[in-house]
Amino acid sequence: MDEFELIKTYFVTPSNNKQIILGVGDDCALLEPSINSSMAISTDTLVEGVHFFNDVDSFTLGYKALAVNLSDLAAMGAKPLVFTLALTMPKVDTAFLEDFSKGLLTLAQESNISLVGGDTTRGPLSITITVIGEVVSGKAFRRSNAKVGDYIFVTGPLGGAALGVGLRLGKHNNLTFSKEVFKSLDMPYPRIDMIDILARSKVNCAIDISDGVIADLNHILSLSHVGAVVYLDDIPLNHNLLALDSSDAKKYALGGGEDYELCFTVSAENCEQLRKECKSAGKEIFCIGKIIPEQGLTNPQIAMPYKNFGKIQLVAPNGKDIPSELKGYMHF
Amino acid sequence: MDEFELIKTYFVTPSNNKQIILGVGDDCALLEPSINSSMAISTDTLVEGVHFFNDVDSFTLGYKALAVNLSDLAAMGAKPLVFTLALTMPKVDTAFLEDFSKGLLTLAQESNISLVGGDTTRGPLSITITVIGEVVSGKAFRRSNAKVGDYIFVTGPLGGAALGVGLRLGKHNNLTFSKEVFKSLDMPYPRIDMIDILARSKVNCAIDISDGVIADLNHILSLSHVGAVVYLDDIPLNHNLLALDSSDAKKYALGGGEDYELCFTVSAENCEQLRKECKSAGKEIFCIGKIIPEQGLTNPQIAMPYKNFGKIQLVAPNGKDIPSELKGYMHF
Repeated sequence: MDEFELIKTYFVTPSNNKQIILGVGDDCALLEPSINSSMAISTDTLVEGVHFFNDVDSFTLGYKALAVNLSDLAAMGAKPLVFTLALTMPKVDTAFLEDFSKGLLTLAQESNISLVGGDTTRGPLSITITVIGEVVSGKAFRRSNAKVGDYIFVTGPLGGAALGVGLRLGKHNNLTFSKEVFKSLDMPYPRIDMIDILARSKVNCAIDISDGVIADLNHILSLSHVGAVVYLDDIPLNHNLLALDSSDAKKYALGGGEDYELCFTVSAENCEQLRKECKSAGKEIFCIGKIIPEQGLTNPQIAMPYKNFGKIQLVAPNGKDIPSELKGYMHF
Repeated sequence: MDEFELIKTYFVTPSNNKQIILGVGDDCALLEPSINSSMAISTDTLVEGVHFFNDVDSFTLGYKALAVNLSDLAAMGAKPLVFTLALTMPKVDTAFLEDFSKGLLTLAQESNISLVGGDTTRGPLSITITVIGEVVSGKAFRRSNAKVGDYIFVTGPLGGAALGVGLRLGKHNNLTFSKEVFKSLDMPYPRIDMIDILARSKVNCAIDISDGVIADLNHILSLSHVGAVVYLDDIPLNHNLLALDSSDAKKYALGGGEDYELCFTVSAENCEQLRKECKSAGKEIFCIGKIIPEQGLTNPQIAMPYKNFGKIQLVAPNGKDIPSELKGYMHF
């Protein structure tokens, strides 16, 4: 099977998106942008042995490779449009390709995003996806736009993916979990379902939680030139973490990466709209803190034991120690 | 050095392109399309040991990784705008990064294209670049648009890159070449200089010659539902091929990949405009054949010895044999 047949057989599906003028099969794909919109572009790579274990299920690998990229579009408030796939693999393995493409295309279809190009090459297994979406000009959720007084939210319980990594590395083998424990790690749902809700609620900024909420929130704070207080006990924990002792659970929830929930900030005056939007759509979100001037605490009621993690003042109302290894995942 | 510092240190350069609303540093980059334009998107991967030798010079590697992608934009008639870089490497090697980024950014600057995002990951060395350009809506040089009667041109001499591969594999060691012999292979110039000329000359379709002119022209023919005659003796040979015997030279020029010249077709009535445009810009192009109905030869004056290669009828006016291994490079 040559490269062209391979792409046709496994990856080309018809699209009824009228913005796609030309898909797979030419030197470039062609995409017609909507009037008054910006294109949002992001690229993420998954490498065997670094981002996934070599015994990973091929379907979930295909799913996840696209999910982590869609998550970036969601964090920008951009509607998914098209993506390219650069797939490097040691040999043409039809069983792998069948499952991998199924996982990839299942999520693509659910998310209304179309594969329009890419490259298949021989080499050690790795997957690079570039997604392109669009957002009304000037309305993207930029990291640099958090305002003092904003409330900080996350879109779901955290730490589930990190627990999955821990289990795969042989930790916690005195505990028993259901098979579902690996779902957050292997098939994280990118929160594209939140794009319209957050846009209508006029959120100021957002980021997806790929490196751990502390590390990712710190990116917002650095670019927005503000600080934050985060209430440790308000961080929603993935339900599987309840089996762990509290210190381990918090390490996973705050420092563990790959949850792919969104962290966003919204002004006090827009919180009511946000609440209504979430209620009517049946979405649960969690307030975990507040944006403050970088200089220090401004709110006397939160003058409690805390430690600094970058620009974040972690508040532990119950006075318990805060885990010290919450720096987020670094690739090097 | 963590991922963020690495990107800042080696890859972020200021851009004065007002269409780039947001570059590196957020979940996505943001790009403002021009009115009445389509976005052209392409992705290409280079893997160590497959697309380049492990002793390759890092500067030329950076240059080439971008060049092969820019070539796809040129083949579509799309003006380069932005690109993302997914760089996977075994470890942070600052000497490598310095040279690699210099090669990459030198060509980026020359080509007016800006790096706006990407991913750096740990793993076996490979480089995936996604380029985005724009072209006036409806004016892209699509492969499916060759018309019967069109003349077929290439933008430069062919076979130089394939000779470079041959030499690196230890062939022709009875011959002596200047160091410059590897330039076509290591630092191919993507023909973005031809975009405006070809647009003004109303070319019907184009492709970049990455897999060999025979293989690439066959893509045009398949998608356009036409055939072609190609005059063997009119294929321009890279000057280094003159040292080889004629049969080897033709194998390289017709079947060898990675030349990254453009192959395009233009109607007879637009040839004069094309000639004028090329003359005034000082560009040399080469007519190598003609588009014919798929069914067979229509022009009695080319009823000469030929062999079929896909939909191409190769014509050798001097009656010499045509090399049989001209199928183009397949990745699997």
